[in-house]
Amino acid sequence: MIGEIIAIGDELTSGRITNTTSGYAARALFLLGHGIQAMHTIGDAPDLIGETLKAAINRCDFVLVTGGLGATTDDLTNEAVIKALELNTVLHPCVQANIESRMGKENRNASVSLAKLAQLPEGAEVLDDDCRMAGYLLRYQGKPIYFLPGVPPQMEILLHDKVLPGLQTFDTARAVPVSQRVYRTCGLFEIEINNRLHTLEQNGVQIGYYPVGAEVHVSLTAHNLELGVDAPRFQEADAFIRKALGHNIYGINQDTLASVTGQLLKARELMLGVAESCTGGLIASAITEVPGSSRWFKGGVVVYSNELKEQLLGIDSALLARYGAVSAETAQAMASQAAQRLGCDITVSATGIAGPEGGTAEKPVGTVYLGLWYQNTVVDRLCRFNGSRRQIQEKTAQTAVDMVRRALLAS
Amino acid sequence: MIGEIIAIGDELTSGRITNTTSGYAARALFLLGHGIQAMHTIGDAPDLIGETLKAAINRCDFVLVTGGLGATTDDLTNEAVIKALELNTVLHPCVQANIESRMGKENRNASVSLAKLAQLPEGAEVLDDDCRMAGYLLRYQGKPIYFLPGVPPQMEILLHDKVLPGLQTFDTARAVPVSQRVYRTCGLFEIEINNRLHTLEQNGVQIGYYPVGAEVHVSLTAHNLELGVDAPRFQEADAFIRKALGHNIYGINQDTLASVTGQLLKARELMLGVAESCTGGLIASAITEVPGSSRWFKGGVVVYSNELKEQLLGIDSALLARYGAVSAETAQAMASQAAQRLGCDITVSATGIAGPEGGTAEKPVGTVYLGLWYQNTVVDRLCRFNGSRRQIQEKTAQTAVDMVRRALLAS
Repeated sequence: MIGEIIAIGDELTSGRITNTTSGYAARALFLLGHGIQAMHTIGDAPDLIGETLKAAINRCDFVLVTGGLGATTDDLTNEAVIKALELNTVLHPCVQANIESRMGKENRNASVSLAKLAQLPEGAEVLDDDCRMAGYLLRYQGKPIYFLPGVPPQMEILLHDKVLPGLQTFDTARAVPVSQRVYRTCGLFEIEINNRLHTLEQNGVQIGYYPVGAEVHVSLTAHNLELGVDAPRFQEADAFIRKALGHNIYGINQDTLASVTGQLLKARELMLGVAESCTGGLIASAITEVPGSSRWFKGGVVVYSNELKEQLLGIDSALLARYGAVSAETAQAMASQAAQRLGCDITVSATGIAGPEGGTAEKPVGTVYLGLWYQNTVVDRLCRFNGSRRQIQEKTAQTAVDMVRRALLAS
Repeated sequence: MIGEIIAIGDELTSGRITNTTSGYAARALFLLGHGIQAMHTIGDAPDLIGETLKAAINRCDFVLVTGGLGATTDDLTNEAVIKALELNTVLHPCVQANIESRMGKENRNASVSLAKLAQLPEGAEVLDDDCRMAGYLLRYQGKPIYFLPGVPPQMEILLHDKVLPGLQTFDTARAVPVSQRVYRTCGLFEIEINNRLHTLEQNGVQIGYYPVGAEVHVSLTAHNLELGVDAPRFQEADAFIRKALGHNIYGINQDTLASVTGQLLKARELMLGVAESCTGGLIASAITEVPGSSRWFKGGVVVYSNELKEQLLGIDSALLARYGAVSAETAQAMASQAAQRLGCDITVSATGIAGPEGGTAEKPVGTVYLGLWYQNTVVDRLCRFNGSRRQIQEKTAQTAVDMVRRALLAS
């Protein structure tokens, strides 16, 4: 089925908040074989919301609308739908009962109440079985329009539990399955990867290239119009990509550098530690985003000041004075000392100039030294990153984790 | 001027990459008084790109297109524009000269070359003075269409240097200045804030509410249709909001909890330190995102394992055994010990269950204890957050920094 997504809110059209829900929903729908032909973002303007919704549902098979369903006075989606589709408002007792049971005395007397949540367009089928989350299905000329909350966690739950299974029941012309694989790489530039892979595109598959900080994600897509026909072509392309990019591919689809590196550490029963200066905790934070990381990550130090480099890691002040905090020598010392003091099997360190201040002619902003200690050997690596302070920190963190991954693969 | 934004790329419509450039541009345009009535995201489909572009430029004053200008084979924007607007292709010598000077021998022989970058629609006015970044202006029936790269840092540079100043020259009916202020709060729920502020909406100003993890951002907007007329109304509303929300407002517009807390620390000449368990470096990382944070942030420890809590912070193993790592006692000990071992004036600690595993009936996932040491006194705070692992980590980090801010304000 072909659909469109409409996200609602002044916070989006004025750019105060980044719209992440549309992309999330698009991805989930895409992987089930549905296509999103357009995504629209409209402000809190009932007329424009209605106009966009009506145009969308007339030109495709389904529409997904997110946002504007809440209780605050800037939530106008229901009003817009009622007007555009010429519907009446109906009180939903289930929603109302739920609100009343949740309302304390304070809220009951409040002048802005949650009662608005129970007023829905006629025909609305509430999605949440417990009537706690906003969100409903409307059938318009036989086509489904799903309305979901704009708050990402709630949207995600209802999308997976209700929308994706529900769409199947409308799917007269069975969705066309799509084969897709995303190869996540670190270590090659985008144009270099394109040079190695472009011949594949004459082969009836699509290749996409997406730089994400120091990484490039490469997508391989085949639309299996006739089931089975494209499978060998997909497998051939897969083998080609794996050979062309080798160990620069760190993972597939939703893998992250940290999750893949964690699997390698776990298999080898090794504990990782970090010593961070310019990244200020970002390496550790990327690692501990992975569930279960306590099994292979012991912890680390954020030695942002030279004083802490000496105090926590016992780095010689003479070394810092002689080579500077941003140097190969300091990066090596941070990694070795962290291995010893934290009692880890492998450690990675980062020291550099994230900017915007602090750059010199010799060591401009973006100069970063990484250190890696493993099996009684310490190495360092000089990187020169560009971008904003945060981008330099992120590229450094990605490259540091990748350095651990490569050391484990090489051992 | 009223405009629309079109972002191009399969990576966006399939949800692989979150579109951040449209929102960034919308914000910059909004603050100059321009309105974005719609933002569209279209895949790498030349016909649909062309159709959307043509419809947009016919119904508004300007269009901004981002993405699809690169050298890889999935970059199709120029092709789409040439077809939709019935233009010829023209070779731009300046762009070509630049490419040639940059190309090494390796690239020159590569089968995918950068030469495509020099082929632009006729009438295209290249935006980058050095012809290094992709991006140009087309005039269509007197209206400007700006084409910018999809890569955020390049898009941002050309937007600020060329598009925003350039739009003024097309602006026949002078842009209507907008007064806007965003109040960033931490400590109150969205509906509670709405209850305190909703009466303002009868006063000709707009109020928006945007929860961001543990924070809520509140926007106040007045469209000054007649210059000066709305200024007192805006000032009145500003005073009302500040009184109603008090110290829950931590900052204005682009302030972050960390940047504001840093200003307070700097003014008092205090050095901050952190001791993190469940946040795994996220508190330190939020702090060191602030340029110049080394002046008020000394560093911290990520004591993810109990072993490191003992080794690095000297926390008594009997205390950990008796109360558990996730306890008020451990949070307090982490903060006090960090203050001593790191030599800081104020420290904050976090220990909790970020999930998805590890929850119990007594301490379910989302249970977090924060500790704060300041002026020889240590306090703790129990929080219960909901959401995914990452959301719990983020809410914990926000609340931890806010705890430092409030301690400084109270002293």
